[in-house]
Amino acid sequence: MRMVDLIIKKREGHALSDEEIRFWIDGYAKGEIPDYQSSAMQMAIVFRGMNKREVSTLTDAMEHSGEVLDLSNLKGVKVDKHSTGGVGDKTSLVLGPMVAACGATVAKLSGRGLGHTGGTLDKLESIPGMSINIEGKRFEEQVNRIGLAIAGQTAHLVPADKKMYALRDVTGTVESIPLIAASVMSKKLASGCDAILLDVTVGEGAFMKNMESARELAKIMVDIGNGLGRDTRAVLSDMGEPLGYAVGNSLEVKEAIEALHGRGPKDLMELCYTSGSIMLVQAKCAIDMNDGRKKLEEAISSGAAFEKFLLMVEAQGGDTSYILHPEKFPVASRIIPIYAEEEGYVHKLNALEIGVSSMKLGGGRETLEDTIDMSAGIVLNKKIGDHVNKGELLCTAYTNKEDIDDILLDIKNAYVIKEEFALEQPVIKEIIQK
Amino acid sequence: MRMVDLIIKKREGHALSDEEIRFWIDGYAKGEIPDYQSSAMQMAIVFRGMNKREVSTLTDAMEHSGEVLDLSNLKGVKVDKHSTGGVGDKTSLVLGPMVAACGATVAKLSGRGLGHTGGTLDKLESIPGMSINIEGKRFEEQVNRIGLAIAGQTAHLVPADKKMYALRDVTGTVESIPLIAASVMSKKLASGCDAILLDVTVGEGAFMKNMESARELAKIMVDIGNGLGRDTRAVLSDMGEPLGYAVGNSLEVKEAIEALHGRGPKDLMELCYTSGSIMLVQAKCAIDMNDGRKKLEEAISSGAAFEKFLLMVEAQGGDTSYILHPEKFPVASRIIPIYAEEEGYVHKLNALEIGVSSMKLGGGRETLEDTIDMSAGIVLNKKIGDHVNKGELLCTAYTNKEDIDDILLDIKNAYVIKEEFALEQPVIKEIIQK
Repeated sequence: MRMVDLIIKKREGHALSDEEIRFWIDGYAKGEIPDYQSSAMQMAIVFRGMNKREVSTLTDAMEHSGEVLDLSNLKGVKVDKHSTGGVGDKTSLVLGPMVAACGATVAKLSGRGLGHTGGTLDKLESIPGMSINIEGKRFEEQVNRIGLAIAGQTAHLVPADKKMYALRDVTGTVESIPLIAASVMSKKLASGCDAILLDVTVGEGAFMKNMESARELAKIMVDIGNGLGRDTRAVLSDMGEPLGYAVGNSLEVKEAIEALHGRGPKDLMELCYTSGSIMLVQAKCAIDMNDGRKKLEEAISSGAAFEKFLLMVEAQGGDTSYILHPEKFPVASRIIPIYAEEEGYVHKLNALEIGVSSMKLGGGRETLEDTIDMSAGIVLNKKIGDHVNKGELLCTAYTNKEDIDDILLDIKNAYVIKEEFALEQPVIKEIIQK
Repeated sequence: MRMVDLIIKKREGHALSDEEIRFWIDGYAKGEIPDYQSSAMQMAIVFRGMNKREVSTLTDAMEHSGEVLDLSNLKGVKVDKHSTGGVGDKTSLVLGPMVAACGATVAKLSGRGLGHTGGTLDKLESIPGMSINIEGKRFEEQVNRIGLAIAGQTAHLVPADKKMYALRDVTGTVESIPLIAASVMSKKLASGCDAILLDVTVGEGAFMKNMESARELAKIMVDIGNGLGRDTRAVLSDMGEPLGYAVGNSLEVKEAIEALHGRGPKDLMELCYTSGSIMLVQAKCAIDMNDGRKKLEEAISSGAAFEKFLLMVEAQGGDTSYILHPEKFPVASRIIPIYAEEEGYVHKLNALEIGVSSMKLGGGRETLEDTIDMSAGIVLNKKIGDHVNKGELLCTAYTNKEDIDDILLDIKNAYVIKEEFALEQPVIKEIIQK
């Protein structure tokens, strides 16, 4: 078998056989197939796509390119959740403790932020002392004891995905539904959970810009997961504007703590309640979504969810005094309010612009080598549907950088304010059960 | 400027600017842009194409990636001819001497064969002593003295094309009209000739399988050449069946010698007369094509063309006794006749199958590292339109290999014989003047 023949086959629009897909992925992971052939194949897939069987085989080949975790020693149904990424998305920090407080077992592997999107690991690391490098026995022990752990992916997991993702990033082949689906699902399957809830984000700030492509991505991932024996479901959530009010690492942790105290933004809470109630059903800790929602509301009002978060921070070496007294988090040296120049209603608040601006203020990384300023970011005061008076506060920028006039202008331009009344956007756009 | 942004731009179907194309080619030639980004770009071009301006800029950038020959010291209008490749295509060996015998200056750079197609350099090297490595002053001196030289391309010419061609070969991106056009034209322009005749082959044995794509390729190359100040014209010639009767290196040289004596196959002679008469007009050695044809016929019948070939072989160190006594060429140890199993007319004679079979008999190379058996190949006895009796000779295989039953079967299967009358195929399908 020659890789060039497989590239030509895909280029001509034919489906690759299981054997051909495994030849590619195994060879690429081992370094026997060079980057330049894999990138040509990926570009052919961008144009020609893959059928369900091909994506499923690709996922399976990537999953088995390295170590596969065995969580069978852990008690109960292990549920995991994955978001396709967004701006201000601190859901895992709130949802994990909520679901664990209701009895589900949450053994979650998360990622870092890149470009305009943030990453759960970076947010957790803004808590002094917090370690995300917990592996093997220690990970298992923590999950068995408190029902919750959020850790970084080890180097041994899905090496083919790591290589391919880095290659896609520099060859213009990120935007492909089959490649995104296989990348997400291979990681989730390799992490050994029994049930998976996918949060597929839709809109300016997400990979999927419209409902059609988001639905296609969600459906193919749900199919792959269930086909490979895991209870997989999906929510489609809005990422036209940022989620919640805070964007930036420690700013988001503080908002997550508020949310665990029952004082979270409406959209964030709605996403957590909906996603959480599905996860509780998957974990067999709730009869149906209504039952799940009641249990989650109780976990918030009783303080059990917050308690679970505290336990996790403590177990992973974090300084819990920051969680109990969020005012201890360092604050950026420059706090710049941005005001409205006209009266009206917020019609648009471009999540991509806000995400990129937050990154430029120091809150994110442009390349994987960049370091993050944990205190930098943006706190919104107005969101879509809100009424604004001339001179009223739109949002506040937090940074330790100088010469940021261009960034402040971009933030202001992320808002579109018009005289006409504007509707608030619902955060849950669709639920895809298996 | 970032290469990934240019890849995405092309992937989304937009035209690249001149600056962007030069950034790619200059960076790739210098090794600053890696193979994996260039291969992704090439695959995006396979799907999205390029407009005329883009192809012209690409050609120019590739041409100037290395040395550009200056033939201005040479007398007269320097004409060159390029074929997009075929099976049994010994045209350059016959056409070069014919045109030079009529007073035109032919300074030709040729290539080697790969896969099912043969290369002029390999054919010439089947003449003992013949050197194709003539450079600089020696090349100029020979062209000035006898009006004809056929040499290999030096390593300094179009390095970007060499790198890109090798990459296209292993990444499934050979079949792209803009990439083929830029590759051919950058080489021809860098070789410094004043006028170019392109022979674009069409059919099973060629890159272009149908008239539509062949015409598109020819027109874009003619446009680029004329746009960059060279008189460029094209013929579209048939490559559904092999050209002439001989396929294989010394076998083709012997057929070329016969042709120079006026005893060449009808299709080969017709292609040489038509192409040659255009080249004589381009070289201002004929008033029009009719005048050119008369002069070419005279060059054959007078023996002037054969004399010119002899002079070239002598000038390049070849043993002319082989040209004067072609029976001296070594003959393969195994000569296997292949007979018809039924009576009828030859409807098809697949040039691709014949070319691949000749390669497998030892007459070609599968990879650039393979060595060629100069005596191996196939001599056809019947071509399309011919009547065949049961048991009559179809063709003869020449080889020094054992275990060739599969190859002989492929050769037999290259013939499609039916009861109904079949028409001979005209070799010239179209002429594209500027």
